[in-house]
Amino acid sequence: MSLRVAERISGIQPFYVMELLRRAKELEAEGRDIIHMEIGEPDFMTPQTILKAAIAHTATGDVKYTPAAGLPELREKIAAFYRLRYGVTIPVSRIFVTPGATGAFLLALGASLNPGEEVLMADPCYPCNSNYVQLYDGKTRTIPVGADSHYQLTAGLIERHWSADTKGVLIASPSNPTGTMIPRDELKKAIATTERLGGCFYSDEIYHGLVYGETAATALEFSDEVFAINSFSKYFGMTGWRIGWLIVPEIFIEATEKLSQNIFISTSSDAQHAALAAFDDATLAELESRRLEFEKRRDFLYDALVRLGFEVPIKPEGAFYIYARCAKFTDDSFKFALDLLESEGVAVTPGKDFGTHEAHHALRFAYTTSLEKLADAAQRLERFINTR
Amino acid sequence: MSLRVAERISGIQPFYVMELLRRAKELEAEGRDIIHMEIGEPDFMTPQTILKAAIAHTATGDVKYTPAAGLPELREKIAAFYRLRYGVTIPVSRIFVTPGATGAFLLALGASLNPGEEVLMADPCYPCNSNYVQLYDGKTRTIPVGADSHYQLTAGLIERHWSADTKGVLIASPSNPTGTMIPRDELKKAIATTERLGGCFYSDEIYHGLVYGETAATALEFSDEVFAINSFSKYFGMTGWRIGWLIVPEIFIEATEKLSQNIFISTSSDAQHAALAAFDDATLAELESRRLEFEKRRDFLYDALVRLGFEVPIKPEGAFYIYARCAKFTDDSFKFALDLLESEGVAVTPGKDFGTHEAHHALRFAYTTSLEKLADAAQRLERFINTR
Ligand SMILES: Cc1ncc(COP(=O)(O)O)c(C=O)c1O
Ligand SMILES: Cc1ncc(COP(=O)(O)O)c(C=O)c1O
Repeated sequence: MSLRVAERISGIQPFYVMELLRRAKELEAEGRDIIHMEIGEPDFMTPQTILKAAIAHTATGDVKYTPAAGLPELREKIAAFYRLRYGVTIPVSRIFVTPGATGAFLLALGASLNPGEEVLMADPCYPCNSNYVQLYDGKTRTIPVGADSHYQLTAGLIERHWSADTKGVLIASPSNPTGTMIPRDELKKAIATTERLGGCFYSDEIYHGLVYGETAATALEFSDEVFAINSFSKYFGMTGWRIGWLIVPEIFIEATEKLSQNIFISTSSDAQHAALAAFDDATLAELESRRLEFEKRRDFLYDALVRLGFEVPIKPEGAFYIYARCAKFTDDSFKFALDLLESEGVAVTPGKDFGTHEAHHALRFAYTTSLEKLADAAQRLERFINTR
Repeated sequence: MSLRVAERISGIQPFYVMELLRRAKELEAEGRDIIHMEIGEPDFMTPQTILKAAIAHTATGDVKYTPAAGLPELREKIAAFYRLRYGVTIPVSRIFVTPGATGAFLLALGASLNPGEEVLMADPCYPCNSNYVQLYDGKTRTIPVGADSHYQLTAGLIERHWSADTKGVLIASPSNPTGTMIPRDELKKAIATTERLGGCFYSDEIYHGLVYGETAATALEFSDEVFAINSFSKYFGMTGWRIGWLIVPEIFIEATEKLSQNIFISTSSDAQHAALAAFDDATLAELESRRLEFEKRRDFLYDALVRLGFEVPIKPEGAFYIYARCAKFTDDSFKFALDLLESEGVAVTPGKDFGTHEAHHALRFAYTTSLEKLADAAQRLERFINTR
């Protein structure tokens, strides 16, 4: 017997936050009160309107495979949403309903990336990105970014790091972990540069909607030749349903269709019927009130962290994360996170889950918990810092 | 601009049945009554007990990401099911809940197959199989099989077709499209041979439960070093929910865990809570009555097809398909299927969706429709044959 794990697996880093999560669970089992600021999903429930639509569908019992690209009605609604929100018209044929943004990435990269080809992305960024690339035996080139570029890639950075192997560029705005956004003009330039270089542009727009200043621009405002990735998970509060969508350039329609038939058959029928209610006025009103609540939390947490001595060079403009520098307190943010959990029961995500660039000086705080808990966490943090 | 589709896509065949489906839809829009015998999912609704469990969960509104490997309670229930049904004990750590058997295959092959490595499978077989392999830039070697081996691979065939590039063997019993099963002893030998050759054994057990003679043996009865793929789709009537499971050899646990965190985050929370009711006595009783109904349909359709002059060398022992030879009527089964749809409104799947071996003489009839409709279809078929 000589079964061996595939080589691609060794290129997939484990998530360090899992170690924290395990320990947090143990502490909770011992009766400790843990404040969870490591969690990348809204604490809000799925909106009632969406739940009702799901239950109505489930009750019919007719929960069958759907077309691979998604229910035609849902694809229509997504197209209508683009007209309304962004003023762009997307043919329904370019819209694919997927199992989350995750599924959207599997399709987008599966349809476009050959083994050995490289994708450029920011460091820090969402850790799964490079692992999708790894899945297809591609390569990732991470580009260190900082406050000067809003922790985002720029046209200049893209051009400078382009190589013979480069296939494309992946950006996310608002970003996980930094919550910062690429300015509208910069997005336009980044897309133009990528197109000029003949590459694919993958735009992760999962945190659109959860923005606290300027609204986010979709890459589709500037080009029809981009991949736009989105999801019902974050803004619409549907993480556990596993539903998102992908918009592809015309020439990728057939490839995307073939791939989705094979690797998904279809996206959850229940989730799709639920999502039919996601664009209702009542739902959007509910989501708007949640957005305001997230904004309050951001303001509170930002002020608290800065007051405590963390550095947050740019106040995050979206998502529900603050990526804070903790250089004043430690050169090992992972150990800091473990100690903080142990002594004060506050769980946060260490920088090294998002890359290597200054990761040892970084922590991601998610404000996916109530203002009360955030206030409690701020006190615990203060005590922790003062007794070190 | 020079965007190009990834090379792997050109290796993915379209499903010919899609053409039939499109035409069937058009005819239906014109008011024609179409009998659907091309559909690979049960016509029964999801059992009430499962629907109730789903609704209860949805109503809580707490539809969040779950652990990547699945809800611990569900993994426990799957383990208990293996003890009960097959008398085998599987540690929960080896069980992964997945988005369908489809997701199980993505994990199993992603964790084990390197680019360029080859997987052996029967011709005919389920068409997505070779496309999963293609996704990871592996190669498929199909082995023509016939009635003499129940349309299944044997230890001898595996040994004969093994090459330096071969990584493993994929079988499905009962098979789609043939409904035939690998005899218990042959399964044992096929596994032993694969293990001796140092390969991975992928056993697709999605049609277990839907068997009409001997119960099916799981590969896990003979070895802990196999991948067993299963699903709630077919036997449990949950196609649209997108939930299945995968059991991996011990040494693949970590790799499978990493992959599933990245490529799924988790399986639908709703589907998992629904599936918690799948093993209840009430559900299993309901499924047993459906199995008996499928058996009646098989008997009826088998007799009808044979009477009409189709050849079915082995009466199918499971699933809900009859793979019939139509050499007496045509040398182009695809054209036969198109004509049959056009003149009589009966939709069936052409052999060439399942491979090339004698595919031009083959059609797959799914008995996923009522006995009444099957009787109607038999009459239409008779008229079609007699007026050609
Ligand atoms: C930036 C980013 N992209 C994609 C995803 C995947 O989300 P989902 O698959 O639930 O849509 C996440 C989830 O945390 C994310 O933060
Ligand atoms: C043999 C076989 N394996 C796997 C699948 C995938 O099913 P699912 O992903 O719904 O579990 C199918 C579906 O038709 C099948 O026939």
